[in-house]
Amino acid sequence: MNERDLGRIAAFTDGVMAVAITLLVLNMEVPRVRAGEDLGDALVDLLPSLGAYALAFALVGRFWLIHHNLFEKLVGFDAMLMTLNLAFLALIVLVPFSSELYDRYTARPLAAAVLGGTLGLAAFVNAVMTAHVLRRGFVHERHRAETDSGLTVGFGLTAVFLLSVPAAFLSVHIAEALWISTVVLRYPLRRLGGLTSSR
Amino acid sequence: MNERDLGRIAAFTDGVMAVAITLLVLNMEVPRVRAGEDLGDALVDLLPSLGAYALAFALVGRFWLIHHNLFEKLVGFDAMLMTLNLAFLALIVLVPFSSELYDRYTARPLAAAVLGGTLGLAAFVNAVMTAHVLRRGFVHERHRAETDSGLTVGFGLTAVFLLSVPAAFLSVHIAEALWISTVVLRYPLRRLGGLTSSR
Amino acid sequence: MNERDLGRIAAFTDGVMAVAITLLVLNMEVPRVRAGEDLGDALVDLLPSLGAYALAFALVGRFWLIHHNLFEKLVGFDAMLMTLNLAFLALIVLVPFSSELYDRYTARPLAAAVLGGTLGLAAFVNAVMTAHVLRRGFVHERHRAETDSGLTVGFGLTAVFLLSVPAAFLSVHIAEALWISTVVLRYPLRRLGGLTSSR
Amino acid sequence: MNERDLGRIAAFTDGVMAVAITLLVLNMEVPRVRAGEDLGDALVDLLPSLGAYALAFALVGRFWLIHHNLFEKLVGFDAMLMTLNLAFLALIVLVPFSSELYDRYTARPLAAAVLGGTLGLAAFVNAVMTAHVLRRGFVHERHRAETDSGLTVGFGLTAVFLLSVPAAFLSVHIAEALWISTVVLRYPLRRLGGLTSSR
Repeated sequence: MNERDLGRIAAFTDGVMAVAITLLVLNMEVPRVRAGEDLGDALVDLLPSLGAYALAFALVGRFWLIHHNLFEKLVGFDAMLMTLNLAFLALIVLVPFSSELYDRYTARPLAAAVLGGTLGLAAFVNAVMTAHVLRRGFVHERHRAETDSGLTVGFGLTAVFLLSVPAAFLSVHIAEALWISTVVLRYPLRRLGGLTSSR
Repeated sequence: MNERDLGRIAAFTDGVMAVAITLLVLNMEVPRVRAGEDLGDALVDLLPSLGAYALAFALVGRFWLIHHNLFEKLVGFDAMLMTLNLAFLALIVLVPFSSELYDRYTARPLAAAVLGGTLGLAAFVNAVMTAHVLRRGFVHERHRAETDSGLTVGFGLTAVFLLSVPAAFLSVHIAEALWISTVVLRYPLRRLGGLTSSR
Repeated sequence: MNERDLGRIAAFTDGVMAVAITLLVLNMEVPRVRAGEDLGDALVDLLPSLGAYALAFALVGRFWLIHHNLFEKLVGFDAMLMTLNLAFLALIVLVPFSSELYDRYTARPLAAAVLGGTLGLAAFVNAVMTAHVLRRGFVHERHRAETDSGLTVGFGLTAVFLLSVPAAFLSVHIAEALWISTVVLRYPLRRLGGLTSSR
Repeated sequence: MNERDLGRIAAFTDGVMAVAITLLVLNMEVPRVRAGEDLGDALVDLLPSLGAYALAFALVGRFWLIHHNLFEKLVGFDAMLMTLNLAFLALIVLVPFSSELYDRYTARPLAAAVLGGTLGLAAFVNAVMTAHVLRRGFVHERHRAETDSGLTVGFGLTAVFLLSVPAAFLSVHIAEALWISTVVLRYPLRRLGGLTSSR
């Protein structure tokens, strides 16, 4: 029963995240050039949008991996977990909006701050979800240590994303660097999580 | 056989609801500000839309939880259940439309009435679906009492949403308060359902 | 192995049909009325679009039910079935386009003919798919009679939809009546299928 | 455990590909004709877009079949496979964009080159994914020979799609012919793969 239930929660989550991650591409509008104009120039102008798409895709993909890693270890759930999961999804679905805002106003710190804040809140709700399942004993015994370290990673991610909000007002590039670090520094962060949890 | 069938009906339902809940974000359009204008003002103007998004997400999420709770208890189904389920989905898919209408014309009672009516019809079809599976014996014995109370909650939800239709013409804020109550008063309503069904 | 494979084909099909059925609502655009204008009039003007939405939703839902009924009986598949299934999906995904075309040009026979043709081709590919699995022995013995009658229903549906193409040039209302008949006459058609197959 | 995990990765992949394949239809906009104008002419003008839709649908469908064939043979996975899978999905989600670009600028070699490049990169990442699971021993023993030939087909597809990039500057029609060949020449290519791998 729990198995089928957990499967359906995961399936709904996957569905929402699959639609959200695909909507990211709608930010990239096919350029309209006239008969005499150069399509190449228009496509080169799209390269920053392509970069924003790739980064947002990687970030939502990262969240999906984190969610996947958490839910595969569960043996139970409660109403609070489902509410937290819905709040998490509501924030993930906002990413295409925040990402398009950021892509359109790359030079404005506020747009980067909104994207950083959206990502930070999503990471925070995810970390709370992890803490909740640990506290309620929904994680199988043999996965507790790993989930403990996942919790550390989760709060680490939250800190990095929330840090990118004020950082964006110093320089948008620092905020960007912080986001990219969460994607490329997966393994170092995980190792750090492992160290912290084994103390 | 029934297991796989029920699983596929649930999967299709999850898919439709996942797309519908994600479409809610399309109501929030990235603002277009000019070089000299303030992006902050434009984003503050979006806050009511963000509120409408959060409310609509919570309401569709609530419907998903109700549907999930019903279907996890089923041991059978018939053509009528599938027809009712499709009617339920057709109404859920209308929520992004009604929600955008409400968001664009917040001050007009008619827009709130349309959203209240859409939600009320969805709750009504869901309650009829619950009554149908109870009457046809598709609910496992040990879940009958719980499903009975779910039916009471279902008709309660229907009443609250339909009440919001005339209430919107008194004040849009009363209608809004009624919708929000269905999300935050989950536990009291469920308890009320439990009391009623145990009489 | 086959079980998991068939499950994944069904899941992908469900995903595509779930997105397609949800896109139907995008045809209904939230009206733009000015401060002094009446929102009620604008909503009344939307009623035909709401009707077209409900009809298209019922028709795609009907196709989903037919597909569901066929795939729950399968014990095997081949590359041809997957190709036919993709062709079927490509036609279903066209329904939101055809339905919007029909909704925008209700008075023009050609628009109704395009919708009728799309539905007819989808029904045809579905019937061919049914014939294929019967011929290749992919249907479990005890379900063969039922699938035989499903095949008759499938070709009946194809005939009705294709008949609506020329009928649209006589009167759009005849075409509409033919489409509606496929939704409301489910049980009579199925009985007819049963009669034919038991001869 | 692995079974459920692999199932969820496949489900998420199916979800993303289902949304991406459905977004292809958004390229076909319902024409706007005035009261006196001929709808037929406008629909005839849409035929190339319908062709582009059909081709793109067949190509994404082909990628889904290839992915499906690979994942049904897996008995394990690692973080690298999930990263590769996300990269593959990011490229598939770009296909609706590239396909719309190509459809709008059919006469321009650059647009065809972008579509060919997108398909080529997707095929390349898929081939790398195949090589990775073979090297890491994630493929069941009895499926190794078949997967080996799948790898050859994968690199063959990559070569054909990447070849279409320079070919587009000779003639867009050569590029088109190359794409179509990957759909219709499935069986010959597979046989070729079989020959190569058995040497």
